Amino acid sequence: MTATRNPTQAFLDEAAALLGPRGLTRDADLIAPWLTDWRGRFTGRACAMASPASTAELADLVRLCAAHGVPIVPQGGNSGMSGGATPDTSGHALLLSLRRMNAIREIDVESRRLTCEAGLVLQTLHEAAEAQGLRFPLTLGGKGSATVGGLVSTNAGGSQVLRHGSMRALVLGLEAVLADGSVFSMLTPLKKDNRGFDLKQLMIGSEGTLGIVTAATLRLVPAVAERVVIWAGVPSLQAARALLLHCEDAANAALEGFEVMPQACLDAVLAHLPGARAPLDGAHRWHVLIEVVADRATAATLRDRCEAMMADAFERDLLDDAAIAASESQAEAFWLLRESVAPAERARGPAVQHDISVPVERMPEFVDAAVPRIESAWPGTEAVAFGHLGDGNVHFHVIAPRVTDAAAWQERDGKAISRQVHDLVTAWGGSISAEHGIGQLKRDELARLGDPVALAMLRAVKHALDPAGLLNPGKLV
Amino acid sequence: MTATRNPTQAFLDEAAALLGPRGLTRDADLIAPWLTDWRGRFTGRACAMASPASTAELADLVRLCAAHGVPIVPQGGNSGMSGGATPDTSGHALLLSLRRMNAIREIDVESRRLTCEAGLVLQTLHEAAEAQGLRFPLTLGGKGSATVGGLVSTNAGGSQVLRHGSMRALVLGLEAVLADGSVFSMLTPLKKDNRGFDLKQLMIGSEGTLGIVTAATLRLVPAVAERVVIWAGVPSLQAARALLLHCEDAANAALEGFEVMPQACLDAVLAHLPGARAPLDGAHRWHVLIEVVADRATAATLRDRCEAMMADAFERDLLDDAAIAASESQAEAFWLLRESVAPAERARGPAVQHDISVPVERMPEFVDAAVPRIESAWPGTEAVAFGHLGDGNVHFHVIAPRVTDAAAWQERDGKAISRQVHDLVTAWGGSISAEHGIGQLKRDELARLGDPVALAMLRAVKHALDPAGLLNPGKLV
Repeated sequence: MTATRNPTQAFLDEAAALLGPRGLTRDADLIAPWLTDWRGRFTGRACAMASPASTAELADLVRLCAAHGVPIVPQGGNSGMSGGATPDTSGHALLLSLRRMNAIREIDVESRRLTCEAGLVLQTLHEAAEAQGLRFPLTLGGKGSATVGGLVSTNAGGSQVLRHGSMRALVLGLEAVLADGSVFSMLTPLKKDNRGFDLKQLMIGSEGTLGIVTAATLRLVPAVAERVVIWAGVPSLQAARALLLHCEDAANAALEGFEVMPQACLDAVLAHLPGARAPLDGAHRWHVLIEVVADRATAATLRDRCEAMMADAFERDLLDDAAIAASESQAEAFWLLRESVAPAERARGPAVQHDISVPVERMPEFVDAAVPRIESAWPGTEAVAFGHLGDGNVHFHVIAPRVTDAAAWQERDGKAISRQVHDLVTAWGGSISAEHGIGQLKRDELARLGDPVALAMLRAVKHALDPAGLLNPGKLV
Repeated sequence: MTATRNPTQAFLDEAAALLGPRGLTRDADLIAPWLTDWRGRFTGRACAMASPASTAELADLVRLCAAHGVPIVPQGGNSGMSGGATPDTSGHALLLSLRRMNAIREIDVESRRLTCEAGLVLQTLHEAAEAQGLRFPLTLGGKGSATVGGLVSTNAGGSQVLRHGSMRALVLGLEAVLADGSVFSMLTPLKKDNRGFDLKQLMIGSEGTLGIVTAATLRLVPAVAERVVIWAGVPSLQAARALLLHCEDAANAALEGFEVMPQACLDAVLAHLPGARAPLDGAHRWHVLIEVVADRATAATLRDRCEAMMADAFERDLLDDAAIAASESQAEAFWLLRESVAPAERARGPAVQHDISVPVERMPEFVDAAVPRIESAWPGTEAVAFGHLGDGNVHFHVIAPRVTDAAAWQERDGKAISRQVHDLVTAWGGSISAEHGIGQLKRDELARLGDPVALAMLRAVKHALDPAGLLNPGKLV
């Protein structure tokens, strides 16, 4: 990493002149909320916080930073899970908020797409699409804060990836400011364009280390006209996978969600959530939440098709019990159980979380092997896996034994547990970051476990596009 | 570009020892067929032709080339349209055939994917998928020659992109040999993986300039259980676009093809193809071929849905006339007309072809403006546009006036016409290469018309991953 130094007064004066009073602040109180990450794990410092109003202003600012050697830490809603938008503690970096650049530049209803600036909040994007009878098919817990720029930069996932893909699959065009202040502009969506490799792919998932995303053209899909939500109990994760294959075969592209949790997670949710009721009678080793959707063209037959799909699954002995939500409010109640798993786990006490993926077909075997391995290596812990089985992505949480000093446990045992989980995932051909990104949280683990050839490529491209290392230093590589 | 020199005897001896008699030839008769591109526009020379049997052998060979400074020109089926697999005339380069590496390493029917080596021919891939009740949803004219490695390296398109995307959307995992002989190995398909930007995207569409694709894991989809093929006549390309929107709305994801051609193209096909019959009575300014498909889950209602879709289109006055193919043989006859447009145009005489795209919604306006512009600037020419309206991609052919010296016309007027077409496309926010790639055919045009920021990025990444410039020199950038 390049050594940085305190920005000069000359730089700060020029930046202030460039951005105006709304565009630059050095007020510690205003900056403070943005210096600690969402999970409260990292706190940094910054010489100032810039909030440019336009791509042109930002391009000028980046040129100024390049001339003065000032590192830039881009930030959207500050809702990342890996500390990717938090500066280091040197205080040398400029914190760059994209939140002022939140305009929707265009909605093309016919072509089903929307062009917006990086600071647009996901929730607002959802509402803008809905107002046109369309839908932006990506959602996640932090939707009230997460911005389009952050979602693109981290290739965000969520619970609709099974059908619609991660953010990468939804980005049709992109605009970004590069390390030298030049503007990469490919917002015009061309369905076919083979002028070399697809440069916008470099910006997606690079966590602001190769350029600063300023705007995107996003794919919209028809609104959901009808949905069927199903809760099923199965005897094993292997059985859940068999049920997944059955549903993929029967519902194909209409299958939008396939989430799993063990009985222990459901128990924790029922204890945590006032008034919550178990969807099925009796206990099941694993629970599955299935969502099948239809747009206007196929809505009429959806419920019948889902009932046939489940009847068929019963006949083939693919599940122990199932309930199809009888109403939209019951469907929402089913989803609330799923969405409450993480809060319920947090309420149980300190834990280390892992956002991991393995090939879908290996997930049952992986979980069945990893849970006892971790629990026996770390007596008193409880390991639970839940989440997006359809994507081969589970959240693997290891709950601490009753300890007196949670922070000390996290620092010592927690880190060692994480290394062991990551070793296991790597041995199974998986990823130590399925959807949350690397940021600063997993940077050392990526360096330790990443394929050396892939790491060399990441570093070579980083050096080629940001030779001075000023874009989000200390993140990713 | 780095200056190259004739490979030394020492290099050739070492390569021969490494690859064995089947793996290296200097026999001019054996090499000759592979030194001229598919369209016969470029002929190069090579010091030898290497045909390694495995990724490990290829990695050793690339290390040897790197040590001796020998350029490498990778080649699959030699069916590219832009001269991207043809060496230059220096004779310094090693021609690298991937055709011996054609194994299917694995088919996973449950997970609907296939892992194969770069030399596998597309037709063979189709057959392997079909044998398992699945389908690889990308096809194109050269399917009997085109290989997976070439399809990946050029991000190939074809007539099913509307629904399934280009090759990029079908590549789940990739293996490639890099310029230093290291092996990039990401064949294991993870649906979610956010360990930095997606490195395999760099190999897709980079035409062998960043690495040599040796294997890929590809997405398969359920076999088509039922298809409905429709021929429609419409008064304008704008009307065709309105019909496209109607079909996208009514059929949504089931819409797999939407191809257009003017009456002149259909006339040329009917004159060229013995026994061919026009699908509709009377002439129409534009003709549309529509394909809607269904898998097992939705096959039963497909025909009814298509009939309703077309009845609705009639009522809304979206077309003049239409015929729904009554049988599979009639469906095939409709498609044969479409597939015969290019051969029929070739039979009419010399022409310059352009593979271009603009945003779908601008295509009617573009064609209506560009055709008279070109025809009036070049008296005696006839400009026709046909192809994948659903992708915003047409083949824009300009047929020569009756000339005595076709080659001279191509060289003088043809090149000037191409520059004018490319200027127009660029002014309309489009791409001078929608699906055929840049190769050596359009390299100068890309340098002339490409966005300087994008070109600088392409070059920076190229230099970072292939600093000596030995991978497919003279192509793309």
